[in-house]
Amino acid sequence: MEHKDPWRATLLTIFPEMFPGPLGLSLAGRALEEGKWALDTVDIRGFATDKHRSVDDSPFGGGAGMVMRPDVLDAAIHGTPAPGPLVYMTPRGRLLNQELVRELAAGPGVRVLCGRFEGVDQRLLEAHGALEVSAGDFVLSGGEPAALVMLDAIVRLLPGVIGKEESLAEESFEWGLLEYPHYTRPQIWDGRTVPEVLLSGHHEKIRAWRKRQAEDITRQRRPDLWDRYVAAKNLSEG
Amino acid sequence: MEHKDPWRATLLTIFPEMFPGPLGLSLAGRALEEGKWALDTVDIRGFATDKHRSVDDSPFGGGAGMVMRPDVLDAAIHGTPAPGPLVYMTPRGRLLNQELVRELAAGPGVRVLCGRFEGVDQRLLEAHGALEVSAGDFVLSGGEPAALVMLDAIVRLLPGVIGKEESLAEESFEWGLLEYPHYTRPQIWDGRTVPEVLLSGHHEKIRAWRKRQAEDITRQRRPDLWDRYVAAKNLSEG
Repeated sequence: MEHKDPWRATLLTIFPEMFPGPLGLSLAGRALEEGKWALDTVDIRGFATDKHRSVDDSPFGGGAGMVMRPDVLDAAIHGTPAPGPLVYMTPRGRLLNQELVRELAAGPGVRVLCGRFEGVDQRLLEAHGALEVSAGDFVLSGGEPAALVMLDAIVRLLPGVIGKEESLAEESFEWGLLEYPHYTRPQIWDGRTVPEVLLSGHHEKIRAWRKRQAEDITRQRRPDLWDRYVAAKNLSEG
Repeated sequence: MEHKDPWRATLLTIFPEMFPGPLGLSLAGRALEEGKWALDTVDIRGFATDKHRSVDDSPFGGGAGMVMRPDVLDAAIHGTPAPGPLVYMTPRGRLLNQELVRELAAGPGVRVLCGRFEGVDQRLLEAHGALEVSAGDFVLSGGEPAALVMLDAIVRLLPGVIGKEESLAEESFEWGLLEYPHYTRPQIWDGRTVPEVLLSGHHEKIRAWRKRQAEDITRQRRPDLWDRYVAAKNLSEG
């Protein structure tokens, strides 16, 4: 196997001390120590040009809050050669899902622009053709928490990070479905037992039961995912 | 104003050192120091009963990965009196959105159960009527990063955390729309100028332009949100 640079996350932020944060512990933290991925932070304030190290200014057209300046951000981006697409975390972006996570994990890395205040100047995003990504339909104090979630999802898919290949195989969204319920010891707890079939040792029946459970819960809880699943199934059986 | 306990987040986790993490800095960190909210962590391992402090066991029915035991989790929950609903972070849950964030911010707090490994025993969730919440359609190494995002979104809505009330008023999802684009100095950057109307000083026109922009971008990028917006508008005008 030839030597290859590890997958690399480059965070552009005014809070570099937020990283690696939770990514420095557990699964991602061990993989980081072992060089299975790399993380760099770039302090955007280092690219400010005035003596107050300002990175923001008031919005044209008025309104509360401040907007991050395009010239300062541009200098930070140009001053940071690093692999991968420039991702900007914003509720206006493409919703992060497991498909996008896989796409980003398959590349050389990502450069993540973390906005604060009201957001960043629109021209900066256009000039760089930034990939706008949303962690979901909610508002955060900045892009950093969203970036942490995205990176956690990516890192666990990188080669060698999760030991047993099987634990990646059967999980939420791998069938396009939500995951079936899990049970472990004690066999009877709080007067509640575990479904009979799971104690049968009959692998074929267990697999069928789990798939049925995954289908049921997806249909009940997420009609949107269910419709997509049915459409994909019809297509492949078509 | 009478004295009132602050909104309280109680995290049940096997990685208490992940908290407050990014929530200890910036907006949320300042508010935490000022007592505008409170955060407690509970180490689930402290409730294990064997000498190895095991919290997990292999799944009934076989398969890779481990499942968190209902008896240990139950002891942790019962051993931790704290306000608010028991929230379990899982891709199978109700999708976190700004509406749910507002609901949780309006209550006394949340107790957040952070799963690791393949997840937690289904009977535990049923016995406690846990509110299952999903940060999005992706798979994380555990519930902790998802909890950080949820708490960040909640904390910024708590009284006094964001100084100017206006900066909460006009933002993504407050109209049920994605946010309009922002522009700040320099007025000409990279040969790109800012939209004329924003320099006009005509507040009515600026507001109309921003709303139109928010509508356009929502229709283009998120037909699902757009459909809901149109339906709500028809209802209120109907």
